[in-house]
Parts: sequence; C-alpha cells; structure tokens
Amino acid sequence: MSASTPTAEHMREVLSRYVDCLTRGDCDGIMALYADDATVEDPVGSEPRRGRAAIADLYRNAAGKLRLELDGRVRVADRCAAAPMLGYPHGMAGMVVEIVDVMTFSDDGLITSMRAYWSPDTMRPA
Amino acid sequence: MSASTPTAEHMREVLSRYVDCLTRGDCDGIMALYADDATVEDPVGSEPRRGRAAIADLYRNAAGKLRLELDGRVRVADRCAAAPMLGYPHGMAGMVVEIVDVMTFSDDGLITSMRAYWSPDTMRPA
Repeated sequence: MSASTPTAEHMREVLSRYVDCLTRGDCDGIMALYADDATVEDPVGSEPRRGRAAIADLYRNAAGKLRLELDGRVRVADRCAAAPMLGYPHGMAGMVVEIVDVMTFSDDGLITSMRAYWSPDTMRPA
Repeated sequence: MSASTPTAEHMREVLSRYVDCLTRGDCDGIMALYADDATVEDPVGSEPRRGRAAIADLYRNAAGKLRLELDGRVRVADRCAAAPMLGYPHGMAGMVVEIVDVMTFSDDGLITSMRAYWSPDTMRPA
C-alpha cells in the first residue's frame, strides 16, 4: 500500500459521515466527501450522474428523507468500500430498504464513484 | 424488465447455491453457475481472472476451505446482486472474514462477473 492510498480507517470514516449527513439532510456535508469528477449510479441500472452539479441535485432530493444506517461492517478492499446499509424512508412508515453502496476513492480520500444496489425487491416491512 | 432479464428470485437462488457449493467444496457446482467468458476479481484490487479455466483454478484452491454464509439479504438491482457474506476459514479457527460479493448476470441467468470486497482488514475474531 503506497502512502497515497486511502486507508481502511479513512474509508470507514467517510462511510460513517455519509450515512450521518444523508440522515441529517446535510447536502453540503455529503458533497464535501465527493471528488469533482465523481459518478453516482443510484440505483444500479439507472443513468449514472457525473460531476458535482448532477450529484448535488440527486442529494438535494434525497437527503433528510430517510434514516440511513450501516448494517454490519464496511468491507474495504484496495481503494474500494462495499457498505451494507438499511434505509428507513420517512414517507413509508414501517418499511426498510436494504442497500449495498459500493464506493471507490481517490488518492486524497475523496469518493470518485458510488453505485447503490437496491430495488423495490429489497424493500420489506421493518 | 424484459422477459430475458434474470429475476431477483433467480439471482438470490444462484447466490444461495454459490455459498453452498463453496462450503461443500463442489467446484463443478460453482462453475455451472458461471458464463464461459466470465471474469472474477477476488479480492477487488487483484488481477481479474477471465474465462472458465482461470476461474476453475481459483475455486479448486478455495472450495471446501471455508464455511461461507450469507450475512443478511442479497441486494439485487437491475441484473446485479450485492451479497454481504461471512467466511469462516478452516485453517483459522475462531476467525471470520467479512465479505461483499458483487455479481452481474447474463440474460440466461449465468454469472458474467464477480468482484469480492474483502481484505485482511475485514478479518476479525468470530
């Protein structure tokens, strides 16, 4: 591992901040975690959003609309993290969405890509 | 969703068979789940293996050497599945490896790619 590779500890810290900011509705806090040229595919299978404006647009619609929490340990490998999560949408009382977010990181520890694995099929009563 | 898209139910069934075959050491059973031109990157960050011979070589070394189980629900999205797992290596009593396997599927339901997110950092006492 080179000195410029983000550490497992760093990637775990970013994931913790991410779920916290999304739950609190802190869109600026989320965007501070992303590299300028990042891509976000949420859910996997949808058109990826590229760059800060398109990504901020997504989070302005999503942040603060659900309680998001990590579901078990974040799995890190190389400069990637795969994070099982549970989401509790405010508008759907009693329902939980099961998610895995996969993120890749730049040398300086910013998120360069995020892909969110979930679908209506991964929604169930909490 | 077109008629040729693998269903969520099918992808979950493949993941169940996968962990079962790997635990039982059934290398042929695992290979029956893969498309001929599949790729496997295990762990993420290593050189991907491409094609049936290279992939079978990996599983001949791994199958039957750990007990693998699903850790929560398989997250499906489009033609992909992200599966949190726990692995208990036979040679490391009392240790567990936390893993997320991400798989993509062909129209006919075979695995076309697998990427395994784990590292020494995701190993801990069980």
